[in-house]
Amino acid sequence: MEKSLPIPDLDGAMALIREKVLPLETEQVTLEHAAGRVAAENLDGLQPIPDFDQSTRDGFAPATEGPFEETSGLVRFRIRGEIAAGDTRNHTVAQGDCLRIMTGAMLPEGADRVVPWERCRVSGEFLELFSDELEGGEHFVRRRGSELKQGSLLLGGGKVISPEHQVHLAAAGNERVAVVRRPGVACFCTGSELVRSGQPVQPGQKVSGNRFLLTGLGRRFGGIPEDLGVIPDTAGELDSCFQKLAQQNNDLVVSTGGMGPGKYDLLEESFVRAGGEVWFRALMLRPGKSILFGRLGKSFFIGLPGPPPAVRTLFNELVGPLLLRLQGVERTYPRVVTAHLSQKLRRKKTGVMMFSGGQLFFKDGRCLVRPASKMEVPDCLIVIPAHRKSFKPGSRVSVHLVSAPFSPALS
Amino acid sequence: MEKSLPIPDLDGAMALIREKVLPLETEQVTLEHAAGRVAAENLDGLQPIPDFDQSTRDGFAPATEGPFEETSGLVRFRIRGEIAAGDTRNHTVAQGDCLRIMTGAMLPEGADRVVPWERCRVSGEFLELFSDELEGGEHFVRRRGSELKQGSLLLGGGKVISPEHQVHLAAAGNERVAVVRRPGVACFCTGSELVRSGQPVQPGQKVSGNRFLLTGLGRRFGGIPEDLGVIPDTAGELDSCFQKLAQQNNDLVVSTGGMGPGKYDLLEESFVRAGGEVWFRALMLRPGKSILFGRLGKSFFIGLPGPPPAVRTLFNELVGPLLLRLQGVERTYPRVVTAHLSQKLRRKKTGVMMFSGGQLFFKDGRCLVRPASKMEVPDCLIVIPAHRKSFKPGSRVSVHLVSAPFSPALS
Repeated sequence: MEKSLPIPDLDGAMALIREKVLPLETEQVTLEHAAGRVAAENLDGLQPIPDFDQSTRDGFAPATEGPFEETSGLVRFRIRGEIAAGDTRNHTVAQGDCLRIMTGAMLPEGADRVVPWERCRVSGEFLELFSDELEGGEHFVRRRGSELKQGSLLLGGGKVISPEHQVHLAAAGNERVAVVRRPGVACFCTGSELVRSGQPVQPGQKVSGNRFLLTGLGRRFGGIPEDLGVIPDTAGELDSCFQKLAQQNNDLVVSTGGMGPGKYDLLEESFVRAGGEVWFRALMLRPGKSILFGRLGKSFFIGLPGPPPAVRTLFNELVGPLLLRLQGVERTYPRVVTAHLSQKLRRKKTGVMMFSGGQLFFKDGRCLVRPASKMEVPDCLIVIPAHRKSFKPGSRVSVHLVSAPFSPALS
Repeated sequence: MEKSLPIPDLDGAMALIREKVLPLETEQVTLEHAAGRVAAENLDGLQPIPDFDQSTRDGFAPATEGPFEETSGLVRFRIRGEIAAGDTRNHTVAQGDCLRIMTGAMLPEGADRVVPWERCRVSGEFLELFSDELEGGEHFVRRRGSELKQGSLLLGGGKVISPEHQVHLAAAGNERVAVVRRPGVACFCTGSELVRSGQPVQPGQKVSGNRFLLTGLGRRFGGIPEDLGVIPDTAGELDSCFQKLAQQNNDLVVSTGGMGPGKYDLLEESFVRAGGEVWFRALMLRPGKSILFGRLGKSFFIGLPGPPPAVRTLFNELVGPLLLRLQGVERTYPRVVTAHLSQKLRRKKTGVMMFSGGQLFFKDGRCLVRPASKMEVPDCLIVIPAHRKSFKPGSRVSVHLVSAPFSPALS
């Protein structure tokens, strides 16, 4: 266990994750179940959008071809019938005639424009217009393929499908889509002092809160979390936990606690006894002094430290990106933004890169950030480079956004 | 039906929503089920965080009171035992003695500091230190109430509970929380040309995509959507739909389509025949030329127009805020940001305020926005005031963010 291992920085850790972690297999789902899933391949429209020329107004579709009856600038078309939205018949309009047409209805053959209802005067069986009222009528027609040509790209592989994409896919006739399987994530918290919420708490004990982070953030990154509960910090309990996990098919196992160098931190020993392979046990990053990353049977394993702010930060920076990688998400996460500090920032010098919780805000077109207060939930992480420990107000800093890459359409 | 109704602007519509819509009733849930729910009242910590003085390191807790054995700067404490994390006994350390202590364990009476393991030398039954190594040891103790005093505010009423808040609530001993009931939202799409995804589509018909927006965005704003499907645009079908809805207990009913001034747009007539009360049928806003807002039995009703970009925009600006209002969310939604246009923007002059889809991005501490392209999903809406139709690159514009106020912890 004490063998020497590399201590990567954040980029090194991410490079290792990209090397070791490959996207899960593809599955087909109906469009209805596609929201919040990751497209496994480029999704091209099967049909053009729209797939027929259609009216965008209620009105009349006059024949393109004249001559019309014309008296002092007034033209007349004989009204020959009507086309309702959803009418699936093939209509044709003959020279000098017109058809009533409803919003969404298919333009008849022989017509190239629509005159909206409110511009029209009907006199008996005739539509009467001033000839200049015909102009611009082509703007009330959505042409076949005008929004999307058949076979054009709708959504790139590796992107998360949103309800808005579902609308486009439906319009393009894509009824089923190939998505990447969602990763199963087994979570547990270790610590002999931990008690589940709802159980009686003695002095010296505390309620385990990290389970809410592991399951909640796991879901936020597209995983399907399974909460294994609190595992006491003893060799026997940890051995039995890891031995079970080694036989299971979780894509990822995440734990919190048991990561320090102390006597009772038996997690790594048990992990290795169960067959676990350790790739790193520390990072050039704070938090990140203690973090276990490796593989156990079919599962990747990340052991996070115990303090919730560290869990939150390392989840955002490493566990989340690993879950995205398992789902084949191509876009870079987290999103990095440059912001101006609205107040001074001073932190203990650690000699390594450090993350500090922040709150981003916007003023007059500028991005500003302030350090988050103690019990506040940060919406970003301020990057403090290894060589810096204080910043003046107005300094430019890099921040990593803490945001949910998946929409709540996930269930 | 043709009675004259006010045509409010966006602020007027929101004022009406605030006047008519009140938060739903409160329910108690266990902490486990609190993520994504809205706090119905201020949530104060029931216990301080932490609720006992605890060590943040594995190490030794020496008695505060000397004298210690001291030889040429070296002090010695007799090791009297140890305190594991989770140990619920009351330990005391006597003058000149120390106890081993583990991370998270309760500090014994008689001690006020912890000396981390890595600074300590153990010689037989003694701990040996240079006296200056005792200094700073108080920093390795998390004091009772140092993060949150008992009874302090953890989360204000009207805020959405995140996994991060659950961690705080767990630590403060709050096992149950009062939340606002989630609103039930019945959705349907009308249009005789519409076909459900997966059904065969004839020329002249199209697949209904708006159902994905109504259900997906409904969930994004905390609602529990029920999809009533496609309702044909006939008086008989609409009458029967509204008459059923008038007897039900939905908090909100949302429809798309059937909103134009044309012959087949029977929605408002059927709504009124079923007992619906109309509050407005148009807004001084584009999109928003046709939008029905009113009440039917126990439900609020919003009838949106048919084009998906209009559905998306009006959902973000009105339906979403209404759902938030039903849940007692106090914060202003959507979030308004000033950004610089990265390219020129030109739109048809409408004489009323207009929203145009945009993509927000950040560069060197500045917020920039560009118009979204046709098939792109916008992440913000650019506000175009009534009197403007073109903007030069670099112009400052207001944008409304399109973001999910709820985390995916909702299921």
